[in-house]
Amino acid sequence: MYFHVRMDVAIPPELDPRQRDELVAREKKYSQELQRAGKWPHIWRIVGEYANFSVFDVESTDELHTLLSGLPLFPHMKIHVTPLATHPSDIAAH
Amino acid sequence: MYFHVRMDVAIPPELDPRQRDELVAREKKYSQELQRAGKWPHIWRIVGEYANFSVFDVESTDELHTLLSGLPLFPHMKIHVTPLATHPSDIAAH
Amino acid sequence: MYFHVRMDVAIPPELDPRQRDELVAREKKYSQELQRAGKWPHIWRIVGEYANFSVFDVESTDELHTLLSGLPLFPHMKIHVTPLATHPSDIAAH
Amino acid sequence: MYFHVRMDVAIPPELDPRQRDELVAREKKYSQELQRAGKWPHIWRIVGEYANFSVFDVESTDELHTLLSGLPLFPHMKIHVTPLATHPSDIAAH
Amino acid sequence: MYFHVRMDVAIPPELDPRQRDELVAREKKYSQELQRAGKWPHIWRIVGEYANFSVFDVESTDELHTLLSGLPLFPHMKIHVTPLATHPSDIAAH
Amino acid sequence: MYFHVRMDVAIPPELDPRQRDELVAREKKYSQELQRAGKWPHIWRIVGEYANFSVFDVESTDELHTLLSGLPLFPHMKIHVTPLATHPSDIAAH
Amino acid sequence: MYFHVRMDVAIPPELDPRQRDELVAREKKYSQELQRAGKWPHIWRIVGEYANFSVFDVESTDELHTLLSGLPLFPHMKIHVTPLATHPSDIAAH
Amino acid sequence: MYFHVRMDVAIPPELDPRQRDELVAREKKYSQELQRAGKWPHIWRIVGEYANFSVFDVESTDELHTLLSGLPLFPHMKIHVTPLATHPSDIAAH
Amino acid sequence: MYFHVRMDVAIPPELDPRQRDELVAREKKYSQELQRAGKWPHIWRIVGEYANFSVFDVESTDELHTLLSGLPLFPHMKIHVTPLATHPSDIAAH
Amino acid sequence: MYFHVRMDVAIPPELDPRQRDELVAREKKYSQELQRAGKWPHIWRIVGEYANFSVFDVESTDELHTLLSGLPLFPHMKIHVTPLATHPSDIAAH
Repeated sequence: MYFHVRMDVAIPPELDPRQRDELVAREKKYSQELQRAGKWPHIWRIVGEYANFSVFDVESTDELHTLLSGLPLFPHMKIHVTPLATHPSDIAAH
Repeated sequence: MYFHVRMDVAIPPELDPRQRDELVAREKKYSQELQRAGKWPHIWRIVGEYANFSVFDVESTDELHTLLSGLPLFPHMKIHVTPLATHPSDIAAH
Repeated sequence: MYFHVRMDVAIPPELDPRQRDELVAREKKYSQELQRAGKWPHIWRIVGEYANFSVFDVESTDELHTLLSGLPLFPHMKIHVTPLATHPSDIAAH
Repeated sequence: MYFHVRMDVAIPPELDPRQRDELVAREKKYSQELQRAGKWPHIWRIVGEYANFSVFDVESTDELHTLLSGLPLFPHMKIHVTPLATHPSDIAAH
Repeated sequence: MYFHVRMDVAIPPELDPRQRDELVAREKKYSQELQRAGKWPHIWRIVGEYANFSVFDVESTDELHTLLSGLPLFPHMKIHVTPLATHPSDIAAH
Repeated sequence: MYFHVRMDVAIPPELDPRQRDELVAREKKYSQELQRAGKWPHIWRIVGEYANFSVFDVESTDELHTLLSGLPLFPHMKIHVTPLATHPSDIAAH
Repeated sequence: MYFHVRMDVAIPPELDPRQRDELVAREKKYSQELQRAGKWPHIWRIVGEYANFSVFDVESTDELHTLLSGLPLFPHMKIHVTPLATHPSDIAAH
Repeated sequence: MYFHVRMDVAIPPELDPRQRDELVAREKKYSQELQRAGKWPHIWRIVGEYANFSVFDVESTDELHTLLSGLPLFPHMKIHVTPLATHPSDIAAH
Repeated sequence: MYFHVRMDVAIPPELDPRQRDELVAREKKYSQELQRAGKWPHIWRIVGEYANFSVFDVESTDELHTLLSGLPLFPHMKIHVTPLATHPSDIAAH
Repeated sequence: MYFHVRMDVAIPPELDPRQRDELVAREKKYSQELQRAGKWPHIWRIVGEYANFSVFDVESTDELHTLLSGLPLFPHMKIHVTPLATHPSDIAAH
């Protein structure tokens, strides 16, 4: 079951640069584990912004909230989720 | 090169139902041809709305505008395009 | 799995009053069948507006879109869906 | 008498983590007491956000404001209240 | 119990002028009856707009929705309701 | 001459609690003096928010700005003013 | 006493061109009479739009609403009024 | 002197197709004459929309309004103008 | 050539009061010099807000940007500029 | 391939003035190098704002994101990108 997610990141500028780098590295690792597990099939950078459009594939809304609130950058993100359904014209789904 | 596209459809209610059905059928055919050609790799229905989130894969912005303005439902759509770049965490791209 | 739904209704004023009444009656019957089936556990009128806040309980986003797009008033509605998860403070869920 | 409430929480990042934990624990206790008293019949997490949709059941708008402004997290919340009425299609209410 | 109400009126220009006048006259009568009954204690015109700010005094949200949806101009209005509580500085309330 | 005023208060959290209490007490005193003088005939709390809807009765826009900018909490408020006229249906005004 | 007014005009395209011309001519005459009477001291076209920014000088909000609602184009306008006060730096006012 | 202009076109669908084509042809001719005269140095299509971003080079705001309101499609356009100044980093201007 | 300017001021509360007073005094002096020079013919306070509506009369957009960015309070202002043209009904201009 | 970019700059006021000047100087140098390389053909100041409208000419969205995220002021900017296509009336393109 797919969900469309927009994430906008705003790390406070006063954060210690080393902490920041460590946070961003953990975020990348976390994201790639979920991608490998098939939970996060798509992630694209929005050009010119510290933001991404992603698609998640989960069993339930509870699972999705657990995955999103576990993001290392979660406290510094604005997240907006839109539920997706199969499109009747989608050749991959038929 | 990827572009994120949101399309909201509003077919005028006064349109003749047969014309409407014919228009929707042509839209589906057009969409599936572009999907098979690899130009329109993703399309999802937004739950509860006559709208979709799509991803296009094109060579140029001119090509993208040609594809979008050629949609049979184009005169009845509100379209918003967002350019996408490769995300540094994307395992598929690295 | 719960979803929060806001529905705003705008029946075209030029619709024949008998058709309008028949449409509204079908909407009510459809809604009550889904309520009895446990799919639509909550529906509230928003005071002063021809609109409601509802909660749906479904197995998947595809099921939700099927239920919503099957509403007799669907062509005259603006619908916005928000996915819900269990709240950690909810005594009913723990 | 029902009211729909959206609460968005933004605890200042500079708050001492122990104070933060204590605040969140007090919020949970307060919320569960109101749930047990029947004043706060529904609370759902909005997926991906530090926010909830709730429904309150109160005798008056004064009572509702007293309950909301007494939330331990009230100084860190943006709250929006919408009054609800019985929906004519609601099978539970008829 | 007080509620703040903003009403914006948009009567369709194609409405027959006699019907329009009759509708506006009925609206005035309905409003003045509720004012006399103490249900609608305040009504002000918003300068330059076909709109008003009003305050209603009702026993319940159900009563308020009944009063508002009974307005002769209801089908041509956009209404927004905000619940009010006693202000701690209000000398009239203490 | 009436004006509708919405005030949203946001006292900086870092303000010393004693200064805050003293400020809020001065605000209350100032407000009640204007109420007694007939300049501020209505004030209501917006439920769930640190905000109010008020109605002022003044001789001129200059007088209104003087009253509002003299509020002890003025530096911490967002204020929006809407001019009001007599409503043709208002029984109190005719 | 000054008020800032923004007027956006949208004459329905289906209006008979002769009626339209007559309406626009009456609007111009009405505006110029108020300008000559000192009630409407400033009017500017917003570049590229069928809209204007104006300043009115009136005795009361009731007078202002009477003047605005008497505009021949009033039924086809969206009007927004902002009350103005003397600016402390204004050399003309001191 | 440069001005940034966004134009969104919405030709009413009920317009006779021949009139529509004639209108669009006149618009193109008008635009190209202004381009050749150096008044309209840039015009770009916004991808996926019946809209453009343009830059005009004029002597005055009066001249700009005359050019824009003379567009054959002006009655069917929403136009927004932003004044531009020389940027301190612009190598073409220094 | 006229331009309509809205300025919203937000001086950081942590600024030293003496610096603040000095800044506001310089702003007033700067504004009055431009008023005397005929560059800033109108300035009005927006009632209830630390904001003004102004009209500037300049030779070019470059001149306008130079004047605005030279305001002592410029770093603490949000400014929005709208270009104005002569209105066809303006008696002062004909 | 052209992209329209709006950049709004907000350098934190607490930044050391020397660091600020150095940052702005690096931004200017970076911008002028891209202008000379033909990648950034247009840049205009938005009058009254610390913002610009720019046009970029790039081979791909990845290249555009690399250029924009390399801006020395990138961490202090809000950037919005709109893809552009050739306009059918553009005389320069035909």
